[in-house]
Amino acid sequence: MADYIRDGAAIYRQSFSIIRAEADLRRFPADIAQVVVRMIHACGQTDLAADIAFSPDVVVRARAALAGGAPILCDTRMVAAGVTRARLPAANEVVCTLPDPRVAELAAAHRTTRSAAAVELWADRLDGAVVAVGNAPTTLFHLLELLAAGAPRPAAVLGGPVGFVGAVESKQALVNYGRSCGLEYLTVLGRRGGSAITAAAVNAVASEVE
Amino acid sequence: MADYIRDGAAIYRQSFSIIRAEADLRRFPADIAQVVVRMIHACGQTDLAADIAFSPDVVVRARAALAGGAPILCDTRMVAAGVTRARLPAANEVVCTLPDPRVAELAAAHRTTRSAAAVELWADRLDGAVVAVGNAPTTLFHLLELLAAGAPRPAAVLGGPVGFVGAVESKQALVNYGRSCGLEYLTVLGRRGGSAITAAAVNAVASEVE
Repeated sequence: MADYIRDGAAIYRQSFSIIRAEADLRRFPADIAQVVVRMIHACGQTDLAADIAFSPDVVVRARAALAGGAPILCDTRMVAAGVTRARLPAANEVVCTLPDPRVAELAAAHRTTRSAAAVELWADRLDGAVVAVGNAPTTLFHLLELLAAGAPRPAAVLGGPVGFVGAVESKQALVNYGRSCGLEYLTVLGRRGGSAITAAAVNAVASEVE
Repeated sequence: MADYIRDGAAIYRQSFSIIRAEADLRRFPADIAQVVVRMIHACGQTDLAADIAFSPDVVVRARAALAGGAPILCDTRMVAAGVTRARLPAANEVVCTLPDPRVAELAAAHRTTRSAAAVELWADRLDGAVVAVGNAPTTLFHLLELLAAGAPRPAAVLGGPVGFVGAVESKQALVNYGRSCGLEYLTVLGRRGGSAITAAAVNAVASEVE
């Protein structure tokens, strides 16, 4: 058996140091770079940096929202499970409405996915929230529909769906909406994304501690 | 707003069809290919196929273990959260010992990470279990140490750690141990891996339904 590092803090330090040496982070402000480093850590690929799209104030706004006690609205139980509670500045509520028993009914009534229907149950907590979408394009599409129809605006939308059907388009729609309507966002263009990368973005935003 | 597919089952079908058209799956037996397709679905990258290492009977053995009621031992809450309970054939127990209050004490006593210490608490359930490691190289290293020291053998080890420090080496150690000592495994060589890919492997093994 090979010898291996057994000090968790040392492993983190060395990982982030390798990422900062290998990844091209030059186009990012320092606060965005810190988030990108942690997202790269979650997928093992330094070239993820090239696919990151963001609004310049997204980290400032999302941090302020969390410091003020905003909830984190997650599309899946995996994203919610990946949020490190010890990093949250105000014991923020981490919400995933997908397992709510009303979701199946709403999905049938609206002829849509359970992931899209689950967004309906965010309505009363959306104002100023930090939204973390790591799985379903339909979550992101439906959130943008609700915002276009006048729903309260979240402080920021982080992460992004992964995959082959709708993921690319839903994240481009987020960027387009963000640019034209002033919504703060940080996402991964293309097919990559997912729960681990999204939870990592939330964890980086939650605390400046690297 | 772009129109988008709202039928969850249709989205899955179309995703898997794109993956099967784009990914080079020729070297895999059919049961392994089904697992690889779902792992690709979880990371959005068809070239993941090239990095998959496996023992030929891993899916047969892991499926039989689950059908017989074996528990699924997960290194993180994210992997555990990502296991789709409806796909499990025997309402199998999904275990993550990391949040156990004894873990911090064990880690300090053994001068190792919490992830490695958490493996100590698998001991009485390891025999014939399906192990899913999606985050920590130290979990995998310590599991291999315990097996080399005579611990009961799991039915299969699925997934693999992601990242920059120890991930590559821990997965190579798994493959080496598997080949020399007959442990069943399915993993991702290199830096890629993680909770989402690992949960996808478990979900594919749990049910033949694509």
